[in-house]
Amino acid sequence: MAKSRFEYVKLFEHHETALPNTWMVVRLDGRGFHRFSALHEFEKPNDARALELMNEAARECMLAFPDIVLAYGESDEMSFVLDRRSNLFKRRKSKVMSTIVSLFSSTYVMRWSRFMRDKEGRPIELQACPHFDARVVCYPTLQNLKDYLSWRQADCHINNLYNTAFWLLVLKKGLTEQEAESRLRGTFSADKNEIMFSECGVNYNNEPAMFRKGSVILWADMEEEVTGQRTMPDGTTKTVTSTRRRRQPVVTAQDMIGPAFWEEHADVFAVET
Amino acid sequence: MAKSRFEYVKLFEHHETALPNTWMVVRLDGRGFHRFSALHEFEKPNDARALELMNEAARECMLAFPDIVLAYGESDEMSFVLDRRSNLFKRRKSKVMSTIVSLFSSTYVMRWSRFMRDKEGRPIELQACPHFDARVVCYPTLQNLKDYLSWRQADCHINNLYNTAFWLLVLKKGLTEQEAESRLRGTFSADKNEIMFSECGVNYNNEPAMFRKGSVILWADMEEEVTGQRTMPDGTTKTVTSTRRRRQPVVTAQDMIGPAFWEEHADVFAVET
Amino acid sequence: MAKSRFEYVKLFEHHETALPNTWMVVRLDGRGFHRFSALHEFEKPNDARALELMNEAARECMLAFPDIVLAYGESDEMSFVLDRRSNLFKRRKSKVMSTIVSLFSSTYVMRWSRFMRDKEGRPIELQACPHFDARVVCYPTLQNLKDYLSWRQADCHINNLYNTAFWLLVLKKGLTEQEAESRLRGTFSADKNEIMFSECGVNYNNEPAMFRKGSVILWADMEEEVTGQRTMPDGTTKTVTSTRRRRQPVVTAQDMIGPAFWEEHADVFAVET
Amino acid sequence: MAKSRFEYVKLFEHHETALPNTWMVVRLDGRGFHRFSALHEFEKPNDARALELMNEAARECMLAFPDIVLAYGESDEMSFVLDRRSNLFKRRKSKVMSTIVSLFSSTYVMRWSRFMRDKEGRPIELQACPHFDARVVCYPTLQNLKDYLSWRQADCHINNLYNTAFWLLVLKKGLTEQEAESRLRGTFSADKNEIMFSECGVNYNNEPAMFRKGSVILWADMEEEVTGQRTMPDGTTKTVTSTRRRRQPVVTAQDMIGPAFWEEHADVFAVET
Repeated sequence: MAKSRFEYVKLFEHHETALPNTWMVVRLDGRGFHRFSALHEFEKPNDARALELMNEAARECMLAFPDIVLAYGESDEMSFVLDRRSNLFKRRKSKVMSTIVSLFSSTYVMRWSRFMRDKEGRPIELQACPHFDARVVCYPTLQNLKDYLSWRQADCHINNLYNTAFWLLVLKKGLTEQEAESRLRGTFSADKNEIMFSECGVNYNNEPAMFRKGSVILWADMEEEVTGQRTMPDGTTKTVTSTRRRRQPVVTAQDMIGPAFWEEHADVFAVET
Repeated sequence: MAKSRFEYVKLFEHHETALPNTWMVVRLDGRGFHRFSALHEFEKPNDARALELMNEAARECMLAFPDIVLAYGESDEMSFVLDRRSNLFKRRKSKVMSTIVSLFSSTYVMRWSRFMRDKEGRPIELQACPHFDARVVCYPTLQNLKDYLSWRQADCHINNLYNTAFWLLVLKKGLTEQEAESRLRGTFSADKNEIMFSECGVNYNNEPAMFRKGSVILWADMEEEVTGQRTMPDGTTKTVTSTRRRRQPVVTAQDMIGPAFWEEHADVFAVET
Repeated sequence: MAKSRFEYVKLFEHHETALPNTWMVVRLDGRGFHRFSALHEFEKPNDARALELMNEAARECMLAFPDIVLAYGESDEMSFVLDRRSNLFKRRKSKVMSTIVSLFSSTYVMRWSRFMRDKEGRPIELQACPHFDARVVCYPTLQNLKDYLSWRQADCHINNLYNTAFWLLVLKKGLTEQEAESRLRGTFSADKNEIMFSECGVNYNNEPAMFRKGSVILWADMEEEVTGQRTMPDGTTKTVTSTRRRRQPVVTAQDMIGPAFWEEHADVFAVET
Repeated sequence: MAKSRFEYVKLFEHHETALPNTWMVVRLDGRGFHRFSALHEFEKPNDARALELMNEAARECMLAFPDIVLAYGESDEMSFVLDRRSNLFKRRKSKVMSTIVSLFSSTYVMRWSRFMRDKEGRPIELQACPHFDARVVCYPTLQNLKDYLSWRQADCHINNLYNTAFWLLVLKKGLTEQEAESRLRGTFSADKNEIMFSECGVNYNNEPAMFRKGSVILWADMEEEVTGQRTMPDGTTKTVTSTRRRRQPVVTAQDMIGPAFWEEHADVFAVET
């Protein structure tokens, strides 16, 4: 069996690498999630369970690849930011991107039943294969990276403002979907806030921050309570609870468009050169 | 909220496309499957259930993307061949690759419990997130594509011959893993066949074809039995079974190194230009 | 002097390679040649001297890089086709392209005065730096390559038909450039042929083939007369003329759109795989 | 003539663009210049005329493409740095690179006889086509760019120190080339300085800066004397000389490894973002 005769085909492989010293961003985007969310009756305009499932899958990716310094999720998309010094997979774009999207997808399914439960706590059956496309983009400066994250967070804001107003009109005021669409056509942010407040009695700013800001996932030292059995000098065992600190990806809902976030987390992004 | 101020960051995206009129091959490769298979006690040297799960995930990808004309799987890797005329996602490499690896991964988890059951039929718990990396390679001519698939199938043969002999020596003859390794060091194919036959009483050619050849998945018209209720003219209902033909991805274990396979399936690959 | 401290910057280099087993085509295109040709009073609609200078520069490139199997020139552009088996510069696109365009450009200037002479044979002074941009494109099949060359030759035909009619109307019939443009607007090929024939007394088919078809440069065995001094047995010298055969790039004006050209030169392009 | 039937081949073109907001560097490197310089009897170890010709060709490129903020030349290589905000040719790498190397090459030939003259001032005949390869590399930060230029200048220093010592030993002390090579093998910079000083009576630091540092070409406002004829009120003409300021590329030999250069020219490189 002449194996070597065929091996020349490896020469056709081409591994594009990300430019060194740039911020690699891997963005995942759900495919067909309009249909997928309808099929599983996601709550409108936001399904907290589904968002938390997205966040859990993102946290799993961060734990597997500590070079990810931040993840940002909104709706059915998730962005991962890799440290600009990262040499993960020698910065081969395909490998970085495919491994992350694969792990994210399998985790999404694996943790589905933990998050997706009905009001009685019964698991909702997964009836279709959720999947995501991925892309990798490089940003050369911190300002470019800030603008990228601001772009996504502004997108989250605009979509969520619209969707919240839309579904309030439909679910609370009883408008048809067409009527709600007409009502909102051409309105500005202030108009939508006013419609929600005066017509639906809802102050948009009181909506959950995760809906309004998306999910910002960062590493933090967390205290964990660890409970274990300890054998005492006299041979007896005793249940002991201690706390330990561990770095973990933690979900928050901070604003990344203003400067405060970047000042607070300057150490994460402050890379000389 | 000035959205537009940030939108310039889209210009940093770069979508590489696969050269038109070439065979795009997406190859997935399990990450850390040595550990993953040990954790779930896969059978040695081959676990038919795990291979069938791989095949099922591949079939799901073919059903979602009919431009895939052939998939070939061995061990924890799977190659997808797209028709050279395919314009899937405008041939954007990242999108083609990421979508396939994502769907494959989520299907692998979703179908896990259907395939991975112990001898009593009880589902084996999934204890880690299986994931895969992906790459896309273009082959300009049919001969290059044949050589690619022959390369993978030769790889399957060589690995499986070794592994089968190795595990027979360990499991049947009681050698330690080190002893088995020493016994096989420097041996040729004929030697391994002889060791299996004379020392372990096993004729390698009688091993299952899926183990020896890998899995070749092709589209075929399959007859399905469809059973339904039909309402009769008199208002009664009757259970009716009929057959219908449908194109489906079908798993086989054919040899792709010799010419017969290519003659038999010439229509699939016979593209002018 | 710490040299090594800086060497990391080499890691930022990225050398894209052309897909193996494809036809690499390097196309050069004159930059600002409208102005350049006006400045040097090129003859309208075609300047045979300038075209021959282009061909000479192309021949020089072929002599330097024998992997070029064909060059095709029209107006201020030149295409070079590399053998699909070529491994020139390991198929690094930048290197292949930049070296060819550089050699072409320097030869164009170096040979300028040999070709660009006025009617009295006096050299025309070069008053601006001629330069070209370049691109490299890969074609996977011979049919794609044929279509590429047909595309350029059809472009040559269409442009030359228009330009010949235009300048006949201006130079021979005394129309202004605007009038000539109006006269030709919306006309088909047959109309232009008719205008030239009936209004200007010119049969387009009798125009020089190099103008109508462009220049196809191929390798051919050419006989050369070589004259040298030979020392005779008696010590005297004698002038001796002999012929020898040598492979040389030869300019022709063949049609590449029909099948005859490809049948005649099948050996050049007939690559198995 | 069916033109459109062939136009699909344009789809095979792929235009890679440089990542926005990075410093694009185009580096040219003479091909076969060892032989080329021997053929034209370049002076050893440095030929000032040839270096000035290189600089002249670089200046021509800067005048044609004002986005080039700095050029750096040593020996037969030249680096061009484009402003990080440059949108030249939409940052298409092939076009940027090929146009610069083409213009550089044709200028090199066109200006050859102005610079390359023997001691009696007679032009030296150009006997071979000089040509260059080119590559384009992107640097995301100013520090990376500084390190790139320091890398090239350190390379210039190391090569020139060796070459100066080598040719002094050969030309002044009468060693053979092999002897000179042996004499210098394993020596450090200090050793070479000492050899030159004590054995050849040459203080390396008194060598021309262009040889030791290479050529740094920057834009500067230069005063030009312009002489013209002016028509006076009484109808007579008078020769008038005036000065005007014009931005021009100016050749210097500054050190770019230390911080002083970057402080002095901070305005050129100080780009926010």
